[in-house]
Amino acid sequence: MIRAGVIGVSGLAGGELVRLLAHHPELELTFAGGSASAGLRLGELHPGLREPGPTIQPGTEAPADRLDVVFLATPAAVSADLAAQLTDRVPAVIDLSGAFRIRTPHIHERWYPGVARAADLVDRCVYGAPELVGDRMADAALISLPGCQATAITLGLAPLALGLCLPLHRVLVDVKTGSSGSGLHLRTAGLHPLRSGAITPYAPTGHRHAAEVTEFLRRARPGAVDSLSMSAYGVPTVRGLLASIYVFTNRPLAQHELRRAYLRYYKGHPFVRLRQHTETRIPLPDPQAVSGSNYCDVTALADEEGGRIVVLAALDNLVKGAAGQAVQAANRRFGLAEETGLTMLPVVPA
Amino acid sequence: MIRAGVIGVSGLAGGELVRLLAHHPELELTFAGGSASAGLRLGELHPGLREPGPTIQPGTEAPADRLDVVFLATPAAVSADLAAQLTDRVPAVIDLSGAFRIRTPHIHERWYPGVARAADLVDRCVYGAPELVGDRMADAALISLPGCQATAITLGLAPLALGLCLPLHRVLVDVKTGSSGSGLHLRTAGLHPLRSGAITPYAPTGHRHAAEVTEFLRRARPGAVDSLSMSAYGVPTVRGLLASIYVFTNRPLAQHELRRAYLRYYKGHPFVRLRQHTETRIPLPDPQAVSGSNYCDVTALADEEGGRIVVLAALDNLVKGAAGQAVQAANRRFGLAEETGLTMLPVVPA
Amino acid sequence: MIRAGVIGVSGLAGGELVRLLAHHPELELTFAGGSASAGLRLGELHPGLREPGPTIQPGTEAPADRLDVVFLATPAAVSADLAAQLTDRVPAVIDLSGAFRIRTPHIHERWYPGVARAADLVDRCVYGAPELVGDRMADAALISLPGCQATAITLGLAPLALGLCLPLHRVLVDVKTGSSGSGLHLRTAGLHPLRSGAITPYAPTGHRHAAEVTEFLRRARPGAVDSLSMSAYGVPTVRGLLASIYVFTNRPLAQHELRRAYLRYYKGHPFVRLRQHTETRIPLPDPQAVSGSNYCDVTALADEEGGRIVVLAALDNLVKGAAGQAVQAANRRFGLAEETGLTMLPVVPA
Amino acid sequence: MIRAGVIGVSGLAGGELVRLLAHHPELELTFAGGSASAGLRLGELHPGLREPGPTIQPGTEAPADRLDVVFLATPAAVSADLAAQLTDRVPAVIDLSGAFRIRTPHIHERWYPGVARAADLVDRCVYGAPELVGDRMADAALISLPGCQATAITLGLAPLALGLCLPLHRVLVDVKTGSSGSGLHLRTAGLHPLRSGAITPYAPTGHRHAAEVTEFLRRARPGAVDSLSMSAYGVPTVRGLLASIYVFTNRPLAQHELRRAYLRYYKGHPFVRLRQHTETRIPLPDPQAVSGSNYCDVTALADEEGGRIVVLAALDNLVKGAAGQAVQAANRRFGLAEETGLTMLPVVPA
Repeated sequence: MIRAGVIGVSGLAGGELVRLLAHHPELELTFAGGSASAGLRLGELHPGLREPGPTIQPGTEAPADRLDVVFLATPAAVSADLAAQLTDRVPAVIDLSGAFRIRTPHIHERWYPGVARAADLVDRCVYGAPELVGDRMADAALISLPGCQATAITLGLAPLALGLCLPLHRVLVDVKTGSSGSGLHLRTAGLHPLRSGAITPYAPTGHRHAAEVTEFLRRARPGAVDSLSMSAYGVPTVRGLLASIYVFTNRPLAQHELRRAYLRYYKGHPFVRLRQHTETRIPLPDPQAVSGSNYCDVTALADEEGGRIVVLAALDNLVKGAAGQAVQAANRRFGLAEETGLTMLPVVPA
Repeated sequence: MIRAGVIGVSGLAGGELVRLLAHHPELELTFAGGSASAGLRLGELHPGLREPGPTIQPGTEAPADRLDVVFLATPAAVSADLAAQLTDRVPAVIDLSGAFRIRTPHIHERWYPGVARAADLVDRCVYGAPELVGDRMADAALISLPGCQATAITLGLAPLALGLCLPLHRVLVDVKTGSSGSGLHLRTAGLHPLRSGAITPYAPTGHRHAAEVTEFLRRARPGAVDSLSMSAYGVPTVRGLLASIYVFTNRPLAQHELRRAYLRYYKGHPFVRLRQHTETRIPLPDPQAVSGSNYCDVTALADEEGGRIVVLAALDNLVKGAAGQAVQAANRRFGLAEETGLTMLPVVPA
Repeated sequence: MIRAGVIGVSGLAGGELVRLLAHHPELELTFAGGSASAGLRLGELHPGLREPGPTIQPGTEAPADRLDVVFLATPAAVSADLAAQLTDRVPAVIDLSGAFRIRTPHIHERWYPGVARAADLVDRCVYGAPELVGDRMADAALISLPGCQATAITLGLAPLALGLCLPLHRVLVDVKTGSSGSGLHLRTAGLHPLRSGAITPYAPTGHRHAAEVTEFLRRARPGAVDSLSMSAYGVPTVRGLLASIYVFTNRPLAQHELRRAYLRYYKGHPFVRLRQHTETRIPLPDPQAVSGSNYCDVTALADEEGGRIVVLAALDNLVKGAAGQAVQAANRRFGLAEETGLTMLPVVPA
Repeated sequence: MIRAGVIGVSGLAGGELVRLLAHHPELELTFAGGSASAGLRLGELHPGLREPGPTIQPGTEAPADRLDVVFLATPAAVSADLAAQLTDRVPAVIDLSGAFRIRTPHIHERWYPGVARAADLVDRCVYGAPELVGDRMADAALISLPGCQATAITLGLAPLALGLCLPLHRVLVDVKTGSSGSGLHLRTAGLHPLRSGAITPYAPTGHRHAAEVTEFLRRARPGAVDSLSMSAYGVPTVRGLLASIYVFTNRPLAQHELRRAYLRYYKGHPFVRLRQHTETRIPLPDPQAVSGSNYCDVTALADEEGGRIVVLAALDNLVKGAAGQAVQAANRRFGLAEETGLTMLPVVPA
């Protein structure tokens, strides 16, 4: 068994890691770290567990010499510190925060002010969705995973930007996200009475995930995208996220070209489901249809009348958008089959 | 115009008072008090307002000499202090908190530990739903209103306990309440992700509203009820509350007797709607049907097979359960027609 | 009193008309028409009403000679027939359906196949939001109101397209709508278990409201918009609708220019609230903040970095998006003050 | 592999069986039957599936000679017919409907009018939750499972009625259920706008699950319960169900006695979780904490002041209340470990 520690079990992503590791045949949770909840039994925090489970300890007390992998489900500043402390002492550190997502220093500082990272860790860190950079995860000491929104956007755009190598200019992204995206941070606007009936433009003109996606695509293929602007909205679901990506093209693409490009790009990638099979009535991506699973559902539609391509990408914030993708990365890191422990079907309806 | 102050405008009940006073032809909001939000404009807190409105000030700065009535939508301990400070300096103080609901000192102290009240204020305070004690509100210096759950339960039981004078023993109350019942108190369990899919037994074996109801009924008619036990559950609506009241009787009552008793008891009370008119398909009480209005919908059903009476009472926590009832009390206090400013129909569906 | 008939009371928009007319001091509901519910009492359908109310009759039995205005809250094909039957027999017919929204015959036929309209009625019909064409409603025999989505989009765009006369090319609209937008049409996808956790791209590449908006703007100012493409999503709220409108501009506009243009355009229009007052913390448009009211909240943001303008417009599908706007039109038609009967504040939170 | 057919895949319970069988290492779905959806591919109905899957056929075409077990997720009348047709031609028939739940003919006819069952099938049928009658399932030709509400109530009461053998009189049950309990039956009241904000007393004075529970307990121990009355409410969750069971006792039981009795009764039963471990802060039963899993969470609380016992039982309507319990029964029937294929943890929050 591969011995895994999870730091940040009090949060939603940390809690989801606990659920997924309980299903994993090769990874075993042997350390549960959390500051707010230190001293509690794990089952007191996570009502899904059958047994009270181990006692939660401060994350800084993670026993590096008895762990094979540590998942950091902590705020970016804490992740930066813990990664510095644990990398090379533990064979693999997998960070779910934003601490290492953006490489360019001044862009990082703009979106993560005060999150100081060791420069050598930035250089050595492998960042990206396992579908796109999984090969480089095999021997990585430090892995950084995209945010939930960045994951959906990047998986939606990659076949156009990196597969077809279309010049993408003025990409416009409109993300609708459930409340789990904000985690369990205590703030009045997150309370049920205020969130339950709301459709809230919480980041209408700028979002750090846009910077993350743009940098990633440009590094993968210089000039892949000139401008990408993003607006993000909170809607009253819990786990779901739907990214709508609008791309204007000079050269019109037919629906069958689009479909072929996406099929080819994601061939062999079990967690990306291409929806709207033309021969069947498979529905379009809707996060309800992936709830609880590690799927990201993707469709690209040629809107010839509108002179645009509409790409839809849906995922569960806490699974493919966080904990599931982290386990998928661990599978790549340790040479396990990519789907190990992640074969649960969506729970529909949710 | 009657000059009204509202203290506690940052909370849900205070905010609802602001909405209702804006519709009221005789009461005018001339002072907005709030500690957390002091310095903000009222329209920054309450997105329903059209204009930025007045600046919020600390509640302790209420100008007693320029107010005719003060509504206290504050925590019980704050209400106790403000009532002592304002009563007799302002013609009428109307308290929405629990500070003055329970008269008997040791019962008060059990359920409101640390809430110290001036004994003479307790003696002079008129407590109860306007339907039941409205006559006594006409010259009251201090009025205390029942909690949202107590309002529904008392209005549901009064025709049996005080109208028919049935001996009620082993009354069992099961309340289902939306999230507005907890106000905007910051706690993890109140966040949208945790509340959205939950049905939570938050007070399964004891609730202070049970003590409040029991004391009230026994004072109104000694021996009216021997034991009343209550369980309360949070469900994922926002404004609604449904109280289910189960009463076992020695003497079976026919449905038509029940109906007649309730009709007679609430004749002339515009805010209690008796549902399930036998000649029509009027639905049973469901809080969705009273949303945004000051109605309390009530039905009493004879379950002859089960040897019991089932009373259902539905209201909007923030209107009939708090701010609406407070305005109704103010109408009684100042000799206005009971419905003044409260004629808005429910917003259905909500 | 102005005698009003409502046909289609079984639907959500018809039901909302019943609510609003109950609050209206000048319009009185004297005929309730509905096919599915004929024979029922109005209060059996609409749980918000206090009394059982009148018996519902088939819409075709509307007594034209005893009505001053008829509201058609019926499907487009039914509205086309009823308008032909009632126009000129009743002083004013106000249609909430899509029957008369699109003038150009082949565009109408594409989006409303099988809805045959009398050509002379199309010519005489006044179509549009009262803010934009209200002056022409004063003596109109037939008024057609925009759909809920078209209302939000048009009110959002008008200051740019018709006020500033900016050339708008490649306007991109992303609408998020609650379930009331689909009415009470029986279909499996509309059931609570399937809709409750969903974010559904139900019209990702084409929507008839886009055709409606485009035609309206071009008629108002030739060349006002070259292409407008729209995607629509269902989210699990009930009444809310938020339209996000993304506009790329050649000439960058500063935030203060935008703000001034919108303020000027909507000066004197009480139902359009311009949000994000710069001097206060008024929140951005969120449909929760207009729930139950006739407001449309609008903000235009200059996203200089993204080279675009982001316009947000929020409304309540059933009020400003349907019944409220219809009453507003009736007020214009009969020379009443525009706000008559429509002064209710939003019910927040909802 | 054990070859399984599921008839009724268009419904929610049938769909959940499809999900669970996909996870089951010993049961394989080899026939998908459904009338409404015949001709579709399974993946067109169930968006959780990765592949389009087999084509759905009419249930009457189930190939009895090539199946080891058939699950009937059909309406009661259809189940009665299919059970007559398939029993003894297929080794095991497992019915999720109400067709065989109530044995006594006149009670059956009262609650299931028009559902005619072969008398010999009633005699041979094993009915009950696997925790209570699992031993008798080992060689059963026909198994009938309790309804979702009856499952929660019976599991909640059994330790009192059948373990402690307390005389239970005047048991009062108040069930709060999510919308999945009504399945996908098309009716206006089930549409999202009407259900989303409602707390609906849909069966306030009588429910067929009460008859089912009462008969079961009395057959298990004559005199186990004298009267059990039930009220059922719809709340706006999807999968959850919480049963509150109020029991008055002559002899007061201490909390530790209750706890010990429940622990002893459910020792060795992996799917019943006893909550509120006294030594920890494990929360009380809330259906959110079992979502997607086969757990039934149970707590019994001694309310000494109220002279009653409060039993809470929470489950997921579609899993432990339907499909999961059916798979559990199949495991018992075929001698597999009870948890086979059912080890998924709850998906929390949902």
